[in-house]
Formats: sequence, C-alpha cells, structure tokens
Amino acid sequence: MTPLITLTSDFGARDPFTGSIKGVILKVNPHAQIVDISNEITPQDIWEAAYVLKSAYGHFPKGTIHLAVVDPGVGSGRRPIIVVTESYYFVGPDNGLFSLIYQEAERIRVHQITSTHYFLPSAGSTFHGRDIFAPVAAWLSKGVASGNFGEEITDYTRLNVPAPKVIENRIEGHVVHIDRFGNIITDITMKEIQQLIGEGSDLGDSGVILAGREIKGFKKYYAEAAPGVPGAIINSSGALEIFMYKQNARANLSVKRGETVRLTIARQNVPVQNPLGIA
Amino acid sequence: MTPLITLTSDFGARDPFTGSIKGVILKVNPHAQIVDISNEITPQDIWEAAYVLKSAYGHFPKGTIHLAVVDPGVGSGRRPIIVVTESYYFVGPDNGLFSLIYQEAERIRVHQITSTHYFLPSAGSTFHGRDIFAPVAAWLSKGVASGNFGEEITDYTRLNVPAPKVIENRIEGHVVHIDRFGNIITDITMKEIQQLIGEGSDLGDSGVILAGREIKGFKKYYAEAAPGVPGAIINSSGALEIFMYKQNARANLSVKRGETVRLTIARQNVPVQNPLGIA
Amino acid sequence: MTPLITLTSDFGARDPFTGSIKGVILKVNPHAQIVDISNEITPQDIWEAAYVLKSAYGHFPKGTIHLAVVDPGVGSGRRPIIVVTESYYFVGPDNGLFSLIYQEAERIRVHQITSTHYFLPSAGSTFHGRDIFAPVAAWLSKGVASGNFGEEITDYTRLNVPAPKVIENRIEGHVVHIDRFGNIITDITMKEIQQLIGEGSDLGDSGVILAGREIKGFKKYYAEAAPGVPGAIINSSGALEIFMYKQNARANLSVKRGETVRLTIARQNVPVQNPLGIA
Repeated sequence: MTPLITLTSDFGARDPFTGSIKGVILKVNPHAQIVDISNEITPQDIWEAAYVLKSAYGHFPKGTIHLAVVDPGVGSGRRPIIVVTESYYFVGPDNGLFSLIYQEAERIRVHQITSTHYFLPSAGSTFHGRDIFAPVAAWLSKGVASGNFGEEITDYTRLNVPAPKVIENRIEGHVVHIDRFGNIITDITMKEIQQLIGEGSDLGDSGVILAGREIKGFKKYYAEAAPGVPGAIINSSGALEIFMYKQNARANLSVKRGETVRLTIARQNVPVQNPLGIA
Repeated sequence: MTPLITLTSDFGARDPFTGSIKGVILKVNPHAQIVDISNEITPQDIWEAAYVLKSAYGHFPKGTIHLAVVDPGVGSGRRPIIVVTESYYFVGPDNGLFSLIYQEAERIRVHQITSTHYFLPSAGSTFHGRDIFAPVAAWLSKGVASGNFGEEITDYTRLNVPAPKVIENRIEGHVVHIDRFGNIITDITMKEIQQLIGEGSDLGDSGVILAGREIKGFKKYYAEAAPGVPGAIINSSGALEIFMYKQNARANLSVKRGETVRLTIARQNVPVQNPLGIA
Repeated sequence: MTPLITLTSDFGARDPFTGSIKGVILKVNPHAQIVDISNEITPQDIWEAAYVLKSAYGHFPKGTIHLAVVDPGVGSGRRPIIVVTESYYFVGPDNGLFSLIYQEAERIRVHQITSTHYFLPSAGSTFHGRDIFAPVAAWLSKGVASGNFGEEITDYTRLNVPAPKVIENRIEGHVVHIDRFGNIITDITMKEIQQLIGEGSDLGDSGVILAGREIKGFKKYYAEAAPGVPGAIINSSGALEIFMYKQNARANLSVKRGETVRLTIARQNVPVQNPLGIA
C-alpha cells in the first residue's frame, strides 16, 4: 500500500517552499505519494487552513497522513505536534490548526514532537514545514510509531470556535468561509436545522438574513436561482450557503468571514411550540 | 500499468474542492495516479475548459481518464456522462465541455451515468465533482466497463463553435484563448492556411488584422519580433497566435476572447485564382 | 526506484502548458513521478526561476531530474542543455537558468541537446518545454545516458550574479527574492557574516539599512518582532531576511528585487581590526 501524505499550507506555488517540503519527504520515503489539499491558504490564516483541512481530510483513505503548516509562530515556543485519530494522522504546529479535527474525531491522541533526530540536521527557526514537519510526516509514513516522536500531551491548543445558536424558530450562525466562486459558507448545518424541524423536513420558504439583506426561499441547486438574485442552499457539506447563480455572491453582497447570519424557519415548517398560547 | 486520471476544473487551489476530489479517487483506487491539467479554469467558463482540455489531452498515454468538471448546472437536469474515444475516457457534465473532443475524435461513444451505486453515499446537489465524477473516474480506472455506468446516448450537448472561414485570399477567425503570457490564440490553423497556399508554403509578408490594428509579417520564433511590436506566429498547436516578445500582447492590444481576427495571405503566396481576369 | 522529475517553469496553472508537459513525460515513462517545484515563476523571469530552483533542488533525492523551463528565447539560437552534477540532472534552455547550480556544484558537465530523435515528432518553435525538454527529461529518467543527447559544451551561459561585498565591519548585498509573505530575502549569508565575526558569533544589535530605513537588532524567530516593526533574521537558507511579523514587509517598505541592502555588524561583535589605532 502506497503511504499517502497530504499537504495543507500557506506556502503558495511560486516560492521554493512547497517543492522543498516535497523533496524532503521523498528523500526520506521515496514511496510516499504526496497530494496537495491546498498550498494557497491566505498567509498566516490558521482558521482558513482549519476549515479547508476539515472539509477535505475525511475523503482520503484510512491511514493518510495530513501535513498542515500555517505557522506564524514558527521558531517560537509553540509546539510541533502529531495528532492521531481513529483513521488519520495529522502533523503540524500546535496553534489551533487542528481544532475542527478535535471537534469531529471520536478518539484523539496528541504527541508533542521532541525527537530532534528526525529533523533535518540544519533545522532553522523560520521554516519548520521543511525542517521538522516534512521529515516527521515522512518517517511516520515509513511506519515509525507516533510515540517515538515524543510524549503525549493533553493541553493542546483549540481555537475558540463560536457555535451556531438555536433560538425559538431561528438559528444564528456565522460566515465561516467564502470560496473561489464567491459562495458564502456558514456554520449553520443540517444538525441545527433538524433540531428545529426534524429530519427530512423541507426548508421551504425559510429565509436567511445576511448583511442586512433577506434571502427568501431555499433552492435545490444553483441553477434554480434567478439571475442576479442571491439564493440559499444546503451545500455538499450539509451547511447553509448563500450563492448567486454564475455570479460572485461575496462581491455582490459585500460579505466578510465572521459576519452573523440568521436563518428563520418558515412558520409552516416549525412544530408549534406552545399551541394553546399559555404564558 | 498505473491508471492515470487527469483533472481539469474551475475548483482552484485554495478551497477544499480539488483535494477532496483527489481523496475520493484514491479511496476508491489507491493505485491511481492523478495529474492536474488545470484547476484554475475561470469560474463557470465551459469554453475555457474545453479549449484547455483539447490542447492537453492528446499528450497523455492511451487509456488516460480525463476528469473535467466546470459545472454551473450541477444538481439540475444536466446529465453526467462518460465519453469513450479510440484512446481516452472523459468523465464530466454534459454541458458542452467535451465539444472539441467530439470534433477531433474519430469514434465517440457517450454514456449517461445513471448507476448511482458508484456515487458517494452522501451525494448532494452542489459538488458532483466530488460526489459523482470522482468516484466514477476512479471505478473506471479500476477496470469497470463504461457500459456499467449507464446507457449510451446520442443527443449529448455540443457547444456552437464558430469555424474560421476562408474567403478569397483571406481567412476570418476568432480569438479562442489568451494565455498567461498574454499571447492571443486564434482558431485559424495550418489547415485553413494550407487550403489557400498549400503545404510547406511560407506565410512570408502575410498580414493579420486584429482589433483594428494590422500586424505585418510572420515570425519563426518569439525573439525575432522587435521590442514593443506585436508579431504573428504559427504556435506549437499549429494555430495563428499574436504575441509581443517578453511583453503581454493582450494588455497592449486590449483584445478579448471572441474577437474577430483576419489573416490576409500576401499576394505572392496565393495561387492566382482567375489568371485571365474573366468575370 | 521510482524516477523523480521536478518541474520549475513560468507556465502557470490555468493554461494547457504544464499539463501537456506532464502528459508527454508520462507517455515516454509511465513510471516517472513528477513533482512541481513551481510553475508560477513570473513570466520570462529567468532570475526568479534560478533562485527558486537553487533553493529547492538540493532537498530532493539523489538522481532527481530537475526540468526547468523559463524560456523567452524559445525557438531562437539558444541551446537546449542537460546539466549533470554529482547528484542531479537539470534539463532546460541555456539562458542562465542554471547559473546558481554552476556556482554550487563541485563538478559540472553540460551537454547540448542535439539528438532530435528524442523530440516530439511535431516539435514547433514556441513550446520546447513540451516538445524537447519534457521528452528528454523522460528519456533521461528511463536511463538513457546524458551523452546520448549531444556533445559536451563548456561555453554555457551564466548570469552575471553580483556577489555581496565585505567592507570593514559591514556587508553590502542585494535583495534577491521577495516571497509570498512579503519577506525580503538578500544574498548576504552566514558565509559573509562569519568572515567578519567568526562562527557561532551573535549578530546581536547589528543593524540593516534597506530602502533608506534602518532595521535594528536581530531576531531569532518571526514572532519575536513587535507588531508593525520590521525585523532582521537569518532564514532557513542561511540568508539575511527582512520581515514583519504577520505582515507584508515588501508592501510596508516598498522594496524591489535588486535593491542594495547593507548589514553593519554591531561594534561589540566585530573583532577589533587595528587595536592600537596606528594609521
């Protein structure tokens, strides 16, 4: 079985960074197969990396090693870690990058990487992606046990991720990502929606408030929306997404990541909460 | 033999899309080798994808599976298809993306993909690249016969591609692509040119009219053109291309895709059509 | 052992160029593994390609074939070459792209590629990356000896690379690259610094003059710098780098590649040159 290593980073495609990391991996393990998840994470944007990694990692085969490096604290006291879940390994800095993995995985084991003999001999303080994380991922892919790289820790860093809130017949959430097409992705998912309307129910005429604008009615697919009119949809990750068919919703609605979004379930779709009106 | 799958899409490098597709493929077939043709197609630009795919696909080994997803109609009624030619497979939406393959291939068989058991179990309506096309390409790469995915169809979609026209001693064509260097590529090829001047003939002082500007004389290579002066050349795909040496012709000439371009063959290179002048 | 071919070019990710090159390689040698160093070199920027290649190539396994194509002179008289060093092969145009390899390698052998039977049959004059360099790299990866591609030459092209100068207690160098993060990388390295202050010495309060601005004191890691204040650091390649923590130093300092940078060693760190003050 070919060992698989994925790469998620802000190292870009123009500089020598990404290529050097791949070289280091292949020098240690010429049999490794390396697949980019993304090297175009916005510089230093730990959250974006966390979101992209979380959206993609589960589609890879069991045993895949996910190397993720968005690392503004490189060379400082922040720890290099290996995260082991039921199905995957993750290698990178302990700066919150794996927060969404911690939320999803059932069992987690985190090792601080301290065995410096796995590092490049010339390890400096500005490029641990190449000097520490790449060789550690490569040795891991050769079968070195995670315990060999360092002791288990429990005080690893988690980003403070605000959760969407269900209030009466509405859900308040946030814009968590805006993709290349300008689609605005929120943290409101089928999980919260089903709390309100039960499984299999229809969102029908439910409305979304975003950036002071109301978006009426849910669509089943992008092309169903009228030209120039923003639509709401449950996307392929089960999350509420605001889009414009063949247009860039972000540019048209001037929305930024982190903004509040409110989904109000249409009256006919909400189970009546106090049918007799008794206060 | 390692099965080879190429990827042509507008999914970009920053979002989780492209990585997820690769994960899905490798989960089904860990032995597949995946090569990007381009994931930087302009969002929803089916023509651009058709052009890029057509320019690259034939350089791959026989048996390569070309996965191509530029899919604004995802989730709507547009059909998912497999195209089988003498040498390759193509997997993607039936929206015209494969129009230039249909023009070139000698034998074509097109299957509508209906066997949903090959799809991801969670298939949604916004990301068939991941949920339908990736697993189908992966199963195809494992040797599943194209007929297993669905029935043959004959009414597949073709883009209306305007052909260049030969009129007396000139050829009227169009700008079909503008590349990263700003080179302006047209649909006027050696095929039309040889109709006028025969094989092996020289274009010599023939001139090109583009965007109200005349470009005089053909060059054999880019560096032959004087600095700041647009040149005409037959490029590596046998097509007429307008360029500026070490400069960006698109920016300098303000040309857009779709514009008309006219190649007038120099008098001495055209066989005389009516030597006696009889009307 | 899987033969490894890397790719460094200005062909970008949107056009069919990079994908076509990979197809050609895999048609000749389906067992080759292809890894991108960068295909996002600024169009026609030979120096940038030389710098990126030099920074990454040494991290790859011995025997790796580095294919590098930034080639404004394509189709003209400039020669296609293979460079053979102790550990690697390089394939590309003889336009100075390999200048920094020539500086570093102990033994160099350069062959002009003249054996046209290794080229694509349809080789044109605008895309030797696909028509000449890709098949040559692929045949090389199949074990064809470098001598089979053409005679050795000694008059290969070297870029005129200005070296940093040590003058009394300071070093004058240049900005050689600015990376994706806006970090400003110079050609002043530990080699020149150790000439002045010996191995293992501390740069302490040494200062850097760049773009009319003084940057005081060296940092051990990026996060050590105060917000909004440019810092100096010795980076992971052993070179002096000017940076701003979590900000873009290039944008803030308005620096361009090629500008002069001056490092003045703090008095206490320089061995006294003329302790008695005798003139």
